[in-house]
Amino acid sequence: MAVYTHVDDEALSAFLGAYDVGELLSAKGIAEGVENTNYLVRAEKGTFILTLYEQRVRADELPFFLNLMAHCADKGLATPRPVPRRDGALISELCGRPAAMVTFLDGVAARRPSPLLCAELGRGLGALHNAALDFSMTRKNGLGIDAWAPLFAQSHDKANSVLPGLAAQVDGELEYLAANWPHTLPAGVIHADLFPDNAFFMRQKLSGIIDFYFACNDLLAYDLAICLNAWCFEEDGAFNVTKSRALTTAYHAVRPLGADEIEALPVLCRGAALRFLLTRLHDWLRVPEGALVTPKDPRPYLERLRFHGGVARASEYGLAL
Amino acid sequence: MAVYTHVDDEALSAFLGAYDVGELLSAKGIAEGVENTNYLVRAEKGTFILTLYEQRVRADELPFFLNLMAHCADKGLATPRPVPRRDGALISELCGRPAAMVTFLDGVAARRPSPLLCAELGRGLGALHNAALDFSMTRKNGLGIDAWAPLFAQSHDKANSVLPGLAAQVDGELEYLAANWPHTLPAGVIHADLFPDNAFFMRQKLSGIIDFYFACNDLLAYDLAICLNAWCFEEDGAFNVTKSRALTTAYHAVRPLGADEIEALPVLCRGAALRFLLTRLHDWLRVPEGALVTPKDPRPYLERLRFHGGVARASEYGLAL
Repeated sequence: MAVYTHVDDEALSAFLGAYDVGELLSAKGIAEGVENTNYLVRAEKGTFILTLYEQRVRADELPFFLNLMAHCADKGLATPRPVPRRDGALISELCGRPAAMVTFLDGVAARRPSPLLCAELGRGLGALHNAALDFSMTRKNGLGIDAWAPLFAQSHDKANSVLPGLAAQVDGELEYLAANWPHTLPAGVIHADLFPDNAFFMRQKLSGIIDFYFACNDLLAYDLAICLNAWCFEEDGAFNVTKSRALTTAYHAVRPLGADEIEALPVLCRGAALRFLLTRLHDWLRVPEGALVTPKDPRPYLERLRFHGGVARASEYGLAL
Repeated sequence: MAVYTHVDDEALSAFLGAYDVGELLSAKGIAEGVENTNYLVRAEKGTFILTLYEQRVRADELPFFLNLMAHCADKGLATPRPVPRRDGALISELCGRPAAMVTFLDGVAARRPSPLLCAELGRGLGALHNAALDFSMTRKNGLGIDAWAPLFAQSHDKANSVLPGLAAQVDGELEYLAANWPHTLPAGVIHADLFPDNAFFMRQKLSGIIDFYFACNDLLAYDLAICLNAWCFEEDGAFNVTKSRALTTAYHAVRPLGADEIEALPVLCRGAALRFLLTRLHDWLRVPEGALVTPKDPRPYLERLRFHGGVARASEYGLAL
């Protein structure tokens, strides 16, 4: 969450010359995004986010992300719209890094989203899934169920140093999920990282969904399970069924869930909780010296995992059918 | 140059309630400023910079800086204008820190300013000095000539590790300046840190002067000497007399320099070069572990110091009279 690559205003002015956005009015490096460098750019024809992709995002995957955003924006979704250069390209290069410019979306993130905002988010997620149904490109989920066991193998030896007994608990969970994962549910393009800081609201309405750099093809209901984990637990770890009911019911109204998807919600929620537990654990154990980013505590996701393990039937998530 | 204090959008929305700026549309932490936290805030009634003052800026000095900006903006200068709260206060508190909001200024900084921009800057500096003549508050220059010897005392022992012979050279310079400083020249409020990154331009015109947090009372021509050091040397260290002529002549057209001020330019330039040499040397020798900020190399200011030491008369700066 920092400006990793400094672009001076003169280089930026020259860079903008390739776009039909008018002259540069101002540019400010902003502290946002998944390990990329972002500038908030004001030009004569609008306000934009310029992203320089640092190491973590693979350049050959950028066309998927950018075309997906364009596809969704074309369908009227509040997603950033990539700005093409005069020559039509969505991807450019700046300071030796792949770079792209997208429209800026107004709105503010909700740190403690209300049930009303959870419903807004559920509708938005359903609309995103529907809009992407006819998107022609695909991308494998690099952090899907197949990746979890190899990922944990890298942290297994140190896991108990974070919490005694963690290694055995995760091993058991991996085994359970491998045996019970509902591979045949409807699949499509999912956001895969739709946490509250990636959704903007204005006047209680969803005004933007951002950060598509984890988007991929996977089970649609798994994306809902990710949101359920990210939006419906309180800071003290308690599950909030009112929020979960609002989220899932609103989603269901826009993209009706099949009986099999509903039945699978508890196992999908366990998978989603495990996925974030594992990546956070991985980063937690590998904080680089002088790191600019504070790693996120994996433990709340262990608590969520335990919660979902105790859910006997999907109706406990409040989905009113 | 980072976001030291994270303010979530909900806290910011609530904070904005004390101002007459309409609802919050968006807020982005920006990587800018002198060790303060800055947010670029878009609200219904405009775009603003919100600053949370971290340790380096003393809270009791904020009224001087903010009232000075308001005073200059009232006189039509392109300086940020502090936005008063509904109760009239310019200074507020957010996340336990003093905070203030000022209007956002469009424009881009010039990394390699042309002679044309140097002239623009000279006119702007003259206008700033004129505008502040009737500003009623005062602030001692904490980095003025009286501060240089005590400041160097903190780095004296290690100075030669940066460059052999540096300690003796600075000692000699301190002695020369103490004996030759033109204390009786016209004084007033100076910016004291008007480097190219603190000036914005649009279409070759000065559109903004920012960062008033070193402003203080001192010799007016000393401020010009600071700019001469900051704007009129090339990256390879060479003095550019075309730029210096443009800067000083344009300044002189707006605030005519007295014969005594012109005559004193070489010694003022030596003082200005020493001031930045000393603060950079100080920071260079004290880089904190895991620092977010790369310290600036003091050596270019030693080269400038040597250059000014060899200037026999002010006309070498190109001032056409």
